[in-house]
This record gives sequence, structure tokens and C-alpha cells, in this order.
Amino acid sequence: MKINTVEKITELKHINLFSISYQDRRNSEKKWIFASRSDCPNPLEAGSDQPDAVVIVPYHVKSGKLVLIREFRVALGDWQYGFPAGLVDTGESVKDAGKRELLEETGLSLVRVLKQSPAVYSSSGLTDESVSLLYAECEGTPSTQFNEDSEDIEVVMVTPEQAVDMLFDKTIKFDVKTWIVLNSFAGYGTI
Amino acid sequence: MKINTVEKITELKHINLFSISYQDRRNSEKKWIFASRSDCPNPLEAGSDQPDAVVIVPYHVKSGKLVLIREFRVALGDWQYGFPAGLVDTGESVKDAGKRELLEETGLSLVRVLKQSPAVYSSSGLTDESVSLLYAECEGTPSTQFNEDSEDIEVVMVTPEQAVDMLFDKTIKFDVKTWIVLNSFAGYGTI
Repeated sequence: MKINTVEKITELKHINLFSISYQDRRNSEKKWIFASRSDCPNPLEAGSDQPDAVVIVPYHVKSGKLVLIREFRVALGDWQYGFPAGLVDTGESVKDAGKRELLEETGLSLVRVLKQSPAVYSSSGLTDESVSLLYAECEGTPSTQFNEDSEDIEVVMVTPEQAVDMLFDKTIKFDVKTWIVLNSFAGYGTI
Repeated sequence: MKINTVEKITELKHINLFSISYQDRRNSEKKWIFASRSDCPNPLEAGSDQPDAVVIVPYHVKSGKLVLIREFRVALGDWQYGFPAGLVDTGESVKDAGKRELLEETGLSLVRVLKQSPAVYSSSGLTDESVSLLYAECEGTPSTQFNEDSEDIEVVMVTPEQAVDMLFDKTIKFDVKTWIVLNSFAGYGTI
């Protein structure tokens, strides 16, 4: 496999499509289209390990609950349960971005980082978007007073028992990362 | 929050960008761009619960190992560790698609489905792409003889001990779902 060229085929502000020409393992020339938040996507670079975004997996120690947000997602035309998350600003650390987004979206304070994943990929058949997962303990009382106008968020704190009830509830739309963590939090183990 | 219009702004075969005009919670008109595999994305529909793709979480019972694939991802210009996965064909069940993709990509046979998630969303700030997770027991000997020409795949079967070594290895690129499951498989629990 070898990448030959990468061509930007849209000129938009926050997201663009790129066309890659590459040679497959039989040496045939192929094309692949993907979406990127970057103006200079990874195949052209030496492989940046800075993630586009941080996703916080917040555990509220005092109540023993996992913290989710129920947020209106324009692309789905519907509400979705997910984790607090947001883009990492240039020069900002993943931890600082996580602390900022957690406060903005839930009103909760980050107390301690338990674990930080490397930059991992959301759906690499479709996009080069990467996120870092920040598993963290948090404290405080949920509040959406710090929401931006474009955000419409409800904070939902769940016990393992509530997680069991939510996982297969057909009225709920989930982010995939959140569903996997919730499945484990519900006590169903890894697989 | 209210969706007003959805406009297709590219004309490509497998993936397109769409511009949504919506009203935010202060009643201001805003725009949001997202990527979709669909010609008629969700915000316009009543909310299809058919996922775009299936992601198999395969457990090889006889060896006690989790089955991953190391696959060249054009959008990353690099190899990535992920789960076997693929698009669900029209009219095909998630289970049948999972069985087919598992065999094509790893040579292994699906024995028993342990759990099937609802359609959950990959990264809904960027795309309406949804997947269903198929947790399944499998058997057989890994083989890539059923790979398509465009696929360049190596099957990697890991023990919990090997998972520990891989999670923070900076030379490895991971799919986010795979990293979360592997973290739990390694014995680190939910959070």
C-alpha cells in the first residue's frame, strides 16, 4: 500500500473532503474519499500524535455515578447521550481541554485524571478524526450555566443499575464510545 | 433546537457533505456541516434504526483471546489496529453482515452472538454514521485468504497480558472502540 497524492476537494471552514490516490496491494491505482477537520491531513504528515478532540469519561466519586450528557446533535436531528467532549485548542494540553469542556458542558470540576489514552481514531474508513480519552474523577453539582448558545445540554448522572436499563432502550440514541463504557459500567464485563 | 433545511453540497459516490440550517436555543439561525454515507441523512427522516455498518467484537473462545485486525487505513496513511467491520448491505441483518465480514477479514467463523448493540453513532459532531456492535464468540484459524484486493489485513489475537503492553505503545494507532474494549479486556475495569 502506498499513498500517491492527497487532493482537497471542498473549501469549507470546519470540515472538508479529501481525495486520496493510492496503490493497493496488487499495485492497482485506487481512490478513497475521506472527511477531515484538518487542512493538512495525516497521510501527508509524519503522523501527528495530537488529537483533534478530547472525550472525557467522568466519574463522579461522591455519588458513584458516571456522568453523561444528553445533547442535541444537529447531524442526527435528535438528542444523543454521550460524554462531554470538545476540540483541543492549538497549544492546549489534553488535560486542560478536558477540564475546560467538562466545566462548560456539565458545571463539574475535574479532580484527578485516572488515565489518558493516546490519540485514537473515531472511524478511519470515513475520517482521520482522532480523540484522546480522558478518564477522570470529578466533583460538584451539575449545571448548564456555562453552556454556549449553540449547545443544548442536559447532564445525566447514572448508576450501574440505571446503565442496565438504558443500554437497550430504543428511545435513546448513543454515542458509540459511551455505549461501550456504559456496557462495562453496567457490570456486563468486557465482552 | 429545530432543523430547517438540509442541503447536499457535494455529489460523490460513497460520502458527501451536507449543510444543515437550524435554529439554536436562542432562536438564532445557524449552519452546521456534516459528512454522511447516506443520500438522505437522518435529520430528514423519522430516524432509521438500521446501522450503516457492523463492528464485530470477536472473542476466540478456545485460545481466550480477543481478535483484532491490523489494517492499512488510507485516511491515516498508516496501519491501524481495529475490529473487523464493514457496511451492512441493504436487506442484510446485522448478524449476517458480521458473520460475512468476520470470515472475509479474519478467516474465523462466528459461533454465537453474545450481544448486539442498537445503532450507535461514531462521532455525531462530524457525521451521522452509525454502527451496531456485535459481540460474538468465534472459532477457527486466522487467515486472510478471503481478503478483498483493496484490503491489506493482518489478524492479531491478543491475551489480556498482551493488551496491557499495547494500550500505551506509541508506535500503535488504534480505533477508539477497540482501545476502550482492550482497556477493559486488559483488566483495568470500566474507568
